[in-house]
Amino acid sequence: MNSTKAKQQTKTAITPTRAEDYPEWYQQVIKAADLAEVSPVRGCMTIKPWGYGIWENIQKTLDDQLKATGHKNAYFPLLIPMSFLQKEAEHVEGFAKECAVVTHYRLGKNEEGKLVPAGELEDPYIIRPTSETIIGEAFSRWIQSYRDLPLLINQWANIIRWEMRTRMFLRTSEFLWQEGHTAHASEKDAREETMKILDLYAELAENYLAIPVIKGEKTPSERFPGAVNTYCIEAMMQDKKAVQAGTSHYLGQNFARAFNIKFLNSNSKEEHAYTTSWGVTTRLIGALIMTHGDDDGLILPPKVATTHIVILPVIHKEETRADVLKYCENLATDLRKMQYAGRSLVVEIDQRDLAGGEKAWSWVKKGVPIRLEIGGKEFQADSVFLGRRDKTYKDRQSQSRTEFLNTVIQQLDEMQANLLNRALEFRKNNSVVINSKEEFYEFFKGDGGFAYAHWNGDPAIEAKIKQDLNVTIRCIPLEKNPEAGKCIFSGEKSPQRVIFAKAY
Amino acid sequence: MNSTKAKQQTKTAITPTRAEDYPEWYQQVIKAADLAEVSPVRGCMTIKPWGYGIWENIQKTLDDQLKATGHKNAYFPLLIPMSFLQKEAEHVEGFAKECAVVTHYRLGKNEEGKLVPAGELEDPYIIRPTSETIIGEAFSRWIQSYRDLPLLINQWANIIRWEMRTRMFLRTSEFLWQEGHTAHASEKDAREETMKILDLYAELAENYLAIPVIKGEKTPSERFPGAVNTYCIEAMMQDKKAVQAGTSHYLGQNFARAFNIKFLNSNSKEEHAYTTSWGVTTRLIGALIMTHGDDDGLILPPKVATTHIVILPVIHKEETRADVLKYCENLATDLRKMQYAGRSLVVEIDQRDLAGGEKAWSWVKKGVPIRLEIGGKEFQADSVFLGRRDKTYKDRQSQSRTEFLNTVIQQLDEMQANLLNRALEFRKNNSVVINSKEEFYEFFKGDGGFAYAHWNGDPAIEAKIKQDLNVTIRCIPLEKNPEAGKCIFSGEKSPQRVIFAKAY
Repeated sequence: MNSTKAKQQTKTAITPTRAEDYPEWYQQVIKAADLAEVSPVRGCMTIKPWGYGIWENIQKTLDDQLKATGHKNAYFPLLIPMSFLQKEAEHVEGFAKECAVVTHYRLGKNEEGKLVPAGELEDPYIIRPTSETIIGEAFSRWIQSYRDLPLLINQWANIIRWEMRTRMFLRTSEFLWQEGHTAHASEKDAREETMKILDLYAELAENYLAIPVIKGEKTPSERFPGAVNTYCIEAMMQDKKAVQAGTSHYLGQNFARAFNIKFLNSNSKEEHAYTTSWGVTTRLIGALIMTHGDDDGLILPPKVATTHIVILPVIHKEETRADVLKYCENLATDLRKMQYAGRSLVVEIDQRDLAGGEKAWSWVKKGVPIRLEIGGKEFQADSVFLGRRDKTYKDRQSQSRTEFLNTVIQQLDEMQANLLNRALEFRKNNSVVINSKEEFYEFFKGDGGFAYAHWNGDPAIEAKIKQDLNVTIRCIPLEKNPEAGKCIFSGEKSPQRVIFAKAY
Repeated sequence: MNSTKAKQQTKTAITPTRAEDYPEWYQQVIKAADLAEVSPVRGCMTIKPWGYGIWENIQKTLDDQLKATGHKNAYFPLLIPMSFLQKEAEHVEGFAKECAVVTHYRLGKNEEGKLVPAGELEDPYIIRPTSETIIGEAFSRWIQSYRDLPLLINQWANIIRWEMRTRMFLRTSEFLWQEGHTAHASEKDAREETMKILDLYAELAENYLAIPVIKGEKTPSERFPGAVNTYCIEAMMQDKKAVQAGTSHYLGQNFARAFNIKFLNSNSKEEHAYTTSWGVTTRLIGALIMTHGDDDGLILPPKVATTHIVILPVIHKEETRADVLKYCENLATDLRKMQYAGRSLVVEIDQRDLAGGEKAWSWVKKGVPIRLEIGGKEFQADSVFLGRRDKTYKDRQSQSRTEFLNTVIQQLDEMQANLLNRALEFRKNNSVVINSKEEFYEFFKGDGGFAYAHWNGDPAIEAKIKQDLNVTIRCIPLEKNPEAGKCIFSGEKSPQRVIFAKAY
C-alpha cells in the first residue's frame, strides 16, 4: 500500500523522465504540449499552434528590437540560381552538400499515368539554404555611394538544408528564421554591427527566453562558410550538452568581392563594401524546451508564454455552475486589463468537459505559467486556488482574489527570474576548469558539461577530440582580460581558455 | 515661352502617364516608390522595404482579425510529396502544370568542375502551390471527434506557381499569402465560415485599403480546383480591368474524402468533415497601387501607410539650421504620441542633403499621406506648410502648428474616405448594364469596364467570349433579390446578371 502510494506520488506526467532517457523525454514533451509533429516530408516538421505561438512571440520581440536599431524588413526570392552559390568559394563548399534542387517546373504523366517531373529547367535553382548570395546580388545594385550605407536589411523566411539526422526544432531540413544582411562603408562599422547584433541576441535569450548564454567566437573550423569571423551565443541544456542559439558573422569584403558590391567613398574612390549576416531560428524553441522543461513537461517563461494564465472552472454541483462561470469571466476580464512585459495578459478559460485533474494536467504539460482552479469554494470565499508552473503540482495555494490581483504581475516577474536563475545555477554546477588532458577525457567520458581549457589553436587537435569524444569547441568566450596559459593537449602556448562541450 | 511653361506645369513625376501607357505607368510607379524589383530568378520579385512595410501592415491587421475570430496560426512544410497532389482529381489537374519540382537534395560537380544536381530523390517533392493536400493529411490525424471541430487554422507562407507571364505583385511565380484551412462538423458550419471570411476580406479591402470590392461567386469554370463553390472579391483598377483581390472556397467533403478526414459525430457515427480554404496575397499591393496611384506615383491610404507623415526641414540659411531642426523634432515628438486607426503615428524626418523640391517629390512618389515642409518661415510663425497626397502638389497650405495638431487625425480620416469615394465613383462611372450582345461586344472593343449582363450559365458561351474579347465573368454578385432575365448571348433564361470584365 505505502509503496504504491509512494510510486504514485513520484509519477511524472512525462515518460520517460529526463534522467531515464533525455532524447526521448524531449520528444514526449513536444508531443504532450502539442508543439509540433514530424511531417510526412523527410526531415521536416509541422509546427502546431501552441508551438507557432511561441515563435510569433519571439518574432514580435526581436522584430521590434531590430526595427528600433534601424533595420528594415524585405523579402528576397526563395529560389537561388545554382550559379550564384559558386561565386564565393567557401560558401559553395559549405552548402552544396545539403541543398534541395529544383530541376523542373511542372508535372506530366508517364505511360502508366503516374505523375513525373516535366518541363526541365536549363538552369536549376536551389532552395535558399541562406541568402547571402541572392541578397549580395541585390546589394550590388542598391549600393552606389557611401550615402547608401549602412544598408540594414532583415528577412523573415523559411530555409531548407537537407539534414541527414533531424530532431524537431533543433535540426530540421526546413526551418524558420530571420536573416540579417547589412553593408557598411568601413570594417569598423561592420564589426560594430556584428557585435551589436550578438548583444541583442544574448539579451533576447537571457532577458526574454530566460536562457543564459555565453557570447564567444567560433574557431576557424566552425565558421560560417565565407565569413571572416563567426560569433555565437551558446547555451547549456539539462543534459549538459550545448546548443548554438544564434550566430552573427563578420563577412569582411568576401561577399562584396564575389558579388561586386562597390561604393564611391567620400573621396570619390571606389571600394568594396563590408558586410555582415546573422540569424536566429526556430531552434530557439528547442533550446527553450530543453532549458526549462521538467518531468511534467514544458515550462514557459512568462514573457514568451502564449497564454499567461489559464482559469479552470471546477463544477461539482450543477447549481453552482452559473455562479462559478460568472466569477471566472469577471476574473479573466480584470486580468486582461493588466500589462506584463509590454503585452496585455493573455487569459484562457478552459470549459472543456473533462475531469478536473486531467484538465489541470493538460495545462501543466503545456507549460502555462499560472493555473487558477475555481470551484464553489473559491466563489464563496472570493479566492483563487493557484498553481505556478515553476513549482511542483502539489505546491498550490489559496489566495484571496484581491491579493492575487495585486501580486500577479510580481509573481510572473518572480517566475521569469526563477527560471533564469535555475538555468544559471545548473550551468554553473556543470562547468569546470580543466588543466590536463587526462582530466578532460575523464570528464567527457562521464557526464560532461562545459569544460574551460587551454588550447593552442591547432585544428588538428580539435578534429582529434571530436573523433575521440564527439566534443567540440563551442566558442572562444569574449573576455575583457583573457588569461594566457598552456594548451592541455600540446603543452604549447594558449592565449585564453576556450569552452569544450558536446553539442546539438 | 508660354507653351514651355504650360508643359512644365503639366509635367508629371511618372512617365508615361496612366493615359499614355497604363501597364508601363504601373511598373514606373513601383520603381519610383521603391516598392519592389524584378529579381534574377525567373518570374520572381524582390520586395523592397517600402513595399514589404505595406505587406507587414496588411498582415498585422488581417492577423488580428483572424485571431479575434478564433483562428490559430501554424506552419506546414514547404515541400509536398508529389503523390499527395494526385489524391484529389481536380486539384492535380489545376496545379500540375505550374509547380516547381525538387528532384535532388545536393549539388555535385561534373567533369568540367561545374555544379550539377546530385543525390536524386526517389520520390520528388513539389514546392507548395497551395496547401490543401499537406494540411488535409495533418487534419486526418488531428481530427477524431466532433469535439475537435471546428478546427480553424491559418498559415502565413510563400507559394510557388510557375507563371509564364508575370507582373510584379499581381502575378509572380513566388508570392506571399495567408491560407486559411478549416474543418467543420456540418455543411452549414463550413458554409458560414466561407462567407464570414469573404466578409472579412471585403472589409479589409474597403475599410483598410480603401479598395471598393464586389462580393460574388465564381462560375464553375473559374472555381478553385477541388472546390464546390469559390467566392471572391473583385475590384476595378483605373484601366477598368478587374483584379480578383481574395477568394474563399467551400470545399464540401472533397478534400475530406481524398485525405480521409473523418470524425465521430455526436451520435457516434463516423462522417467526413466539411472543409474550407481561403487566401489573400501580396497581389493586394498591386491592387492598391492601381486603385489609388496617380500620374505622380503611389498614393497610400493612411490606414495602411508605413509612414503617415514626413517632415522636410528646409534650411536656406545655415544659422537657422539648429532652430528649424529642433522645431521639426518637437513636432515629430508631439505627432508620435497620437494614435490613428490603432497605431501610433509614424513620422519620419528627412534630413538628406538634397534639394528641397527633389526631396519633397521623392515622398510624393512614395505616396506618404502628409508632407510638412518646415523652414525658417514656419519656425518663426509657429506653423507648418502642408501637402496632402490626395491633393495636387501645388495645392499646399500654411497652417498654424496648433491647428495642424488639432486636425491631423481628422485630415487622415478625410483622406482615407476621399480615396475610397474616388474609387467608388470611378467604378460607378465605368460600370454599365448591358442588354444586347452587340452592345456587349461594342463595349469591350472600346474602353470596357464592368458589364452587368444576363447569362444562361453555359460555359461554352464563357469560353467564346474569352476567346473573342479576352473578357471573363468576374463573379455572380451576391444579391439578396436577384432579378431574372434573358441571356444576351443565347436568349435563354438567366437567374441574375453577372459581371463581365477584362482582368489581371
